[in-house]
Formats: sequence, C-alpha cells, structure tokens
Amino acid sequence: MFSRNITRLLFIQKYLLKRNARHFSRILDIILEKPVGKSTKVQGWVYAIRKMKNNIFFDVNDGSTNEMLQVVIPKSSKPVNLTYGSSINAEGIVTLAPNGRLELQVNETHVIGTCDITKGYPLQPKKPYDAKYLRQYLHLRPRAQKFSSLLRLRDIATANINNHFRSRNFIHIHTPIITSNDCEGAGEVFIVRPDSKEVLKSMKKDGMSLDEIYFNSKAYLTVSGQLQLEVLARTLSKVYTFGPTFRAENSKSRLHLSEFYMVEAEKAFVSNIEEIAEEIELLVKTVTKDMLDHNSLDFHHIGATEPQWLNSKFGYMTYDEAVNILNDYAVKLQHPIKYGDVLTKEHELFLVKYNNSVPLFVINWPKEGKPFYMKECSNDSSKVAGLDLLVPIVGELVGGSIREDNYEKLKLKLPSNHNLSWYLELRKYGNVSTGGFGMGFERFLQCVLGITNIKDTIPFPRWPHNCNL
Amino acid sequence: MFSRNITRLLFIQKYLLKRNARHFSRILDIILEKPVGKSTKVQGWVYAIRKMKNNIFFDVNDGSTNEMLQVVIPKSSKPVNLTYGSSINAEGIVTLAPNGRLELQVNETHVIGTCDITKGYPLQPKKPYDAKYLRQYLHLRPRAQKFSSLLRLRDIATANINNHFRSRNFIHIHTPIITSNDCEGAGEVFIVRPDSKEVLKSMKKDGMSLDEIYFNSKAYLTVSGQLQLEVLARTLSKVYTFGPTFRAENSKSRLHLSEFYMVEAEKAFVSNIEEIAEEIELLVKTVTKDMLDHNSLDFHHIGATEPQWLNSKFGYMTYDEAVNILNDYAVKLQHPIKYGDVLTKEHELFLVKYNNSVPLFVINWPKEGKPFYMKECSNDSSKVAGLDLLVPIVGELVGGSIREDNYEKLKLKLPSNHNLSWYLELRKYGNVSTGGFGMGFERFLQCVLGITNIKDTIPFPRWPHNCNL
Repeated sequence: MFSRNITRLLFIQKYLLKRNARHFSRILDIILEKPVGKSTKVQGWVYAIRKMKNNIFFDVNDGSTNEMLQVVIPKSSKPVNLTYGSSINAEGIVTLAPNGRLELQVNETHVIGTCDITKGYPLQPKKPYDAKYLRQYLHLRPRAQKFSSLLRLRDIATANINNHFRSRNFIHIHTPIITSNDCEGAGEVFIVRPDSKEVLKSMKKDGMSLDEIYFNSKAYLTVSGQLQLEVLARTLSKVYTFGPTFRAENSKSRLHLSEFYMVEAEKAFVSNIEEIAEEIELLVKTVTKDMLDHNSLDFHHIGATEPQWLNSKFGYMTYDEAVNILNDYAVKLQHPIKYGDVLTKEHELFLVKYNNSVPLFVINWPKEGKPFYMKECSNDSSKVAGLDLLVPIVGELVGGSIREDNYEKLKLKLPSNHNLSWYLELRKYGNVSTGGFGMGFERFLQCVLGITNIKDTIPFPRWPHNCNL
Repeated sequence: MFSRNITRLLFIQKYLLKRNARHFSRILDIILEKPVGKSTKVQGWVYAIRKMKNNIFFDVNDGSTNEMLQVVIPKSSKPVNLTYGSSINAEGIVTLAPNGRLELQVNETHVIGTCDITKGYPLQPKKPYDAKYLRQYLHLRPRAQKFSSLLRLRDIATANINNHFRSRNFIHIHTPIITSNDCEGAGEVFIVRPDSKEVLKSMKKDGMSLDEIYFNSKAYLTVSGQLQLEVLARTLSKVYTFGPTFRAENSKSRLHLSEFYMVEAEKAFVSNIEEIAEEIELLVKTVTKDMLDHNSLDFHHIGATEPQWLNSKFGYMTYDEAVNILNDYAVKLQHPIKYGDVLTKEHELFLVKYNNSVPLFVINWPKEGKPFYMKECSNDSSKVAGLDLLVPIVGELVGGSIREDNYEKLKLKLPSNHNLSWYLELRKYGNVSTGGFGMGFERFLQCVLGITNIKDTIPFPRWPHNCNL
C-alpha cells in the first residue's frame, strides 16, 4: 500500500510539473527572445489599462524585468474584474505591433486576484508617489516600479560582490551576528536576551543580571566582523564576509540605518595600506561595471547614469594634505577643521568635489580618534596606517587599515576591561601582518545609483522609531 | 604640492603592488599548475617538520587547499625559529620528488611569526584533538586541518546555493534581522534594545517599557524571513533569502544553535506542494553535487563520502502513511506515535531508514500543530499543504508549505493580538497563491558531510552559555 501511494504521488507530481513547465514564460525571456508567432502564456500583475475602439491594451509585469509586456484582448472578452493592480494569467500569440513593440494577442485572460483601488489601496494608478510616502507601506512598496528596479539591482550587486571576491580567491566566512565583544569602538550597540521569562528562569544563576543569563555574559549585535575575520585570515590567508551589522544610535540622517549590510575583507601577509586601497578600488569599480553590464535597463529606469568616475583613477591624499586643503578653502566651509579633528560630512563631500568628483582615499590618520587595532605608521608613530574612501553623494564609503600585529604594542592599546585576550593571542603563535576594509553596502548603492536616502536602498529599513514588518 | 604628493603615492603604490604580484603563489595554484623548474615564492604556516641527513623537510599550508606543499631546505640554512606553527615565506625552485610529489627546493626561508608551543599553545603537533576540545579555542580552531576543510566547503556550498537560485531566476532579498513580528510560532525569540542608557533616556516616551523605546515597539531577532518574502513574491514572482536566524531556546542538542543560517525561498503562482518539493530536491542535490565536483579534496579530507542518495529519487509519503508505518513498527521504537502528534527525532530517523536511507518528504499534515499560514488541503480541511523533508543524520532538514491565500480564512487563523494586518492585506490587492520552504544550512552541511554536531559546521557557534568571540 505504501509503495502504491508513492507511485500515485509521483504521477501527480510529474503531471503538475510538466503542465507548469509547458505553460508560463518569464516576461524578461519574451522580451529577450522575441518568440513572434508563438503561443505563449504569462502570469503577472496589471500596471496600466488603455481602451481603444475594439480592443483593450494592458501592461503586465512579473518582476523579472522593469519592462512591461503589452497584452491585447478584444473588448468583448475582457473580464469585468480585470483592473489596474489585479493579478492575471493570459495565453496568446506573440506579435510585433507596427511601432516594433512586442504584443501578446489573447482571446482569454483570467483574473487571479482582484484589486479594488477604492478600498484603501495606497498606490493609485499613474500617481508619482515620493519615496517618503512609499516608506509608509513597506509591504506594498515593491510594487512601485522604481523600487522593484532597485531590488533587482540590489540582487545583482549582491551576486557580483560575491563573485568578485571568489575570483580574487577570498573565502566567504559567516562572522557571528551575536557577539560578546563590546569594545570595538564603532558606536552604540544593541543588547540581546531571550524574551521568554520561563527560559530566563530556567537558566538563572546567582549574581547574574537578566542580560547575562542566556550566554553567561552580555551579548550584543555585531558592529563589524573584522576581529573575527582576523582569526580566519591567519589560516585561510584571504577572507571576506557580507552580512548585517547594527548601530543603536538615535540618528535620523539620510545616511544611517539601525540595520545595514557590510562587505568586509581581510588579507594576511599585507603590510602596506596601498595594497588595501587597490583592493577596494577594484571592488567598487568591478561591481559598478557589472551592474551596468548586466542590468542597464533597471539602472537607467531608476534614473541613474554611469558614474563619471568609473574610468578615472581614484585619488590619494594623506590626512595632513586633506586638512591643508580644507584650511585653504575655509571660507567656503560652514565648519572649518582643526588639525586632529575627524572629517565631517561637509569636509568629506568638499574633498570629493575638490578631486573633480572622483572618489579619493585619505590615508595616514592621527592615532587619536582611530580604533585601537590600527597599526602605527612605520615612519610616524603619531599616525596610523588607516584609510577612508570618500565618494560623491555619501562621503565616507569604506574604512580600512593595516592591523596592529605587534603583541606588546597591541596589549598596551587594548581598551581596559576588554574581553579580547583571544584577539591578542592571535599575535602570539605564527603571527602575520593583516589588513582589510569594510564597505557599507547601502551607501555603495546610494553612491552608484544616486539615491539620496539610504532607507530607499533596502526592502525593510530599520531606523529610530521604525521597525515595521 | 598636492599633485606632487599624489604622484609620489601612486608611484610607491605601483611599486609595491608589482613587487607583491611578482612574488607569491597560492599553494593550490602550484599543486594544480605544477610549475616544475620555475622559481616560486610562497607564504604560509608550517604544519610539520622532518629532519633528514642533510636537509630539512617542512609542510606549508596557506589555506587555499588542504594539501601541503613540501619545502626542502639544507640543514645549514634552516632558521633556528623555524618550528611547527610558525608563519614563513620561502623562495625556491619547484621540483618533482622521486615519489612524484611536488617539492619546493629553497636556499632561504624567512620566519615571519614564531610559534613557541611550550607557551600555552593548545594545538600540539600530531595530536588528534577531538571536536569538543577544539571548540574551546574558536580563535585557533581554523588551524586544525579538518576544520579549515570545513570552512572551504562551507564557502563553496554558500556560493553554490546563491548560484543555483540565480540560475532558477530567483531574486535575492535581504529580509530583516530585527523585526517587530512576534507571533510566527517558530519557538522562543531574542529581544533587542539599545545598550546605552543615554540613548534610551534621550528617546524615552511616556508609558513605554525599556524594550519599546528605540523602535516604538518590542523588537526581536528574526526566526524566519518567510512572511517578508511573501511581500516580495507578490511583485518579483520568485525570491529567496540566505541569512542568519535565531532561537532563544535552552536546548543543548547536537542539532540546535542559537544562531544559524537559513535558506528560504518563496514562489508566486504556485498551488501544489509537489512543485515546492521538486524545488527542494533540486536544490539539495545540485549543491551537494557541486561541492563534490568543485572540492572533492576537502570533501574526502574531512572524512565525507558521496551520499548514497545523490542519484536516488527522494521518497514521498503523507503524514497518515508515516504514522501507519511507525505504528506497524512500534516495537522497534522507544516512543510510539499517536495520530496527530508531531514526529520526534527518533520517528524522523526511523522513516529515513525505512526509506533505505534516502531522504523523503512527508506531506499533508494535520492542521493542529502547524502554523497559521499554511493552506488547507483542498480535499481534506483537517490537513494543511505542508511538507517536511527528512534526511539521514539530522532528520528534518527542510520545512515548506503552500500559504493560506484566502483573505477570510487567514483572518480567522491569525493569532490574537497579532500585528500582521500588513500580511493579511497582501491577500486583498492583486493576490496570488504562493508557496515556499526553509532549509537549515548547518543541518544541510551535517547531512552531506556526516558531521554529528552542528557546532562543528560554523566558525563561531552560539548556544546556551556560549557566545565566545
């Protein structure tokens, strides 16, 4: 009886799969392959309807491309509930309209899900909603055409980043999201504990706070995978990670999210910051070029143009040179800079403009104000071998450095009350120099695609007071 | 002066990069390309040393492969501090030893970082440490050869999963890590708030608990990206995510982690569970085959063999059939099953064995005990169109279902006090049926690579009382 049932199920399965495979084409494939004269079936959503004399024309999209497939149906065959926003399937013959546009001529179309736009639907037809309005409706925002273009471009950039690192022989590492490290100095952190009172009660130990019970120590959401990547670089030589990082800041800037993605890489046997800079420039340019090469339709649909810096060599200057320039142009700045200060967003964007809007590296920073893990410059112990990459629109896009690999020097620089003895110990056994960088993925998308607000580069943005869905 | 400096920096940079590019080869490339007779330079770590009459032989590894490159140096030229565990670089001529093995004949080798194993180094030479011992030293564990093989295999599986979905036209989505959804019914959750008292004070509003201040509501670590993927499937048709998920359970099993990775996919226009099953079987087999094809060296080095199920069709049975079988064999079970119960690990593994150790799908589950979002079977309203994929070693590897797409039915099934009105509303405008699944990535690695404990499949495991690094 058992084997009979299996046989029956397999039969049904094969039947259904074959039926399915035979029937539906992606709209992107129809646009690329132009199967004129062939019977074709599509499924998707209706984005516009036009009535002509005897026919109804409607635009269908299935998310595979930003382009619409125009479907033509005799007026007499149009279902009553075929409206803007409804989901449909349709079968017909692909033809070429006199204007050269592909059309699907159908005799029949079936409405799967209706869309009554009079019942509270926030996306009325032909209304150009602004980004802020759309952010109120995260569950429907992907239906706005520019945002679905953004999602496809984000997908391509994600794939290209992974492919690029693989082609450079970097090994992908899942660095931890929850960590007990609390002293990386990268800003405010989120703390994590079980929500369940029962779990906490069952695990309770004397003298422990609620926040320490589950993991035997306080546990935070990661602000960077760098320290853990340094572990792996000491065995695998070249490693990277591409995952979520977190900041619990109360900042409402167009450049900050509470949850965002970082691309971080770490290389062993590296001792000069220029090699790290070269790695960064290659990454930024390769991924940008690949986005243009593989999805120029969405790239232009979103309103972006090829960045003018794509074929220029990125600039270099030292921190000292940057301060000199900013001082020379102090009258043009709202806030002048004092030597030793960090650069403000205004300073960063001014320097980019000064460099003809081509990205530039600022290297060799004063030790004060930079994290403990950066290595002193060999020719100037007041400086560290760190870099920032400054780019149009966002300012700082990437930060990187050579890491302090001297056991004794690092020991002195570690924060008090640290729990980083493991990090120090990496320098004790078979030590090598390492260097690396971190790039904010959403800022990269902002810079390349010209998106002013970072909240419009990610499907589910989190920022102070906002954690919808 | 500014441009002079840039020129100087560029010059230095080019020089250093050229020097670097000229000098060092990856050990994997040497093994693949066999550049016999050529001058070659390598850098890496020493894993073994043997003394012969006039020469010293030492094994070097740089993480690009599990294979060692044998380096030969005259006894007189050996640096005193060249020991097991030290990092070195070496330049010489590649030769073929009489036994056919590649060797690097060097006159000089330079120790970069020493390794004094008498000073507390926990990885003594030639000791076969067990997995539990190594877990105490997460920062050094990658240096254990089998674990570095695991990391390369994990990297390949990660890349293959992404490539597989792309080839199937699924679009990658970063679903949120922090979420305000608290009622997905997938177990205990972690709650998240800022650690900084100042941030909390500055954002405080009347009547809000500490846990609600930052996001205006309680915020949790995700247990699944499914609900959000359903948003995207309704515009992009086929989507997937591959990211971290969390469970705040107090369980110390060999199959559970507090932080683990899930591959989740969602397809629109799907209404039969067999199509989801087919998608899962294809994923599991393709990624397993690719691991074998692209890194059989590490695959076998880790002690794994090609799974015998790789060329078998996965089995199918209904929940009712599964219970009948378990009842037929009740004498062989420690814990018999009652109709309506969930399957225990013992039941799952028994069913796999019953199916000749070939993975099998169990479909059509009793509604009770399954989450609210699963769709009723059309021919039996006491059942839902859900599936579990059961596999050797781990039992349940994948869970999936067709989602309830009927607005009124879903409304009745939603948990009380839910905040999922957005999820319900997806069924109101241009609705389509969707279905999908989630696969635990670490359990996949356990099953394919034969790794008993899930903590040995991830570089930085988190489980109750353990959050090191």
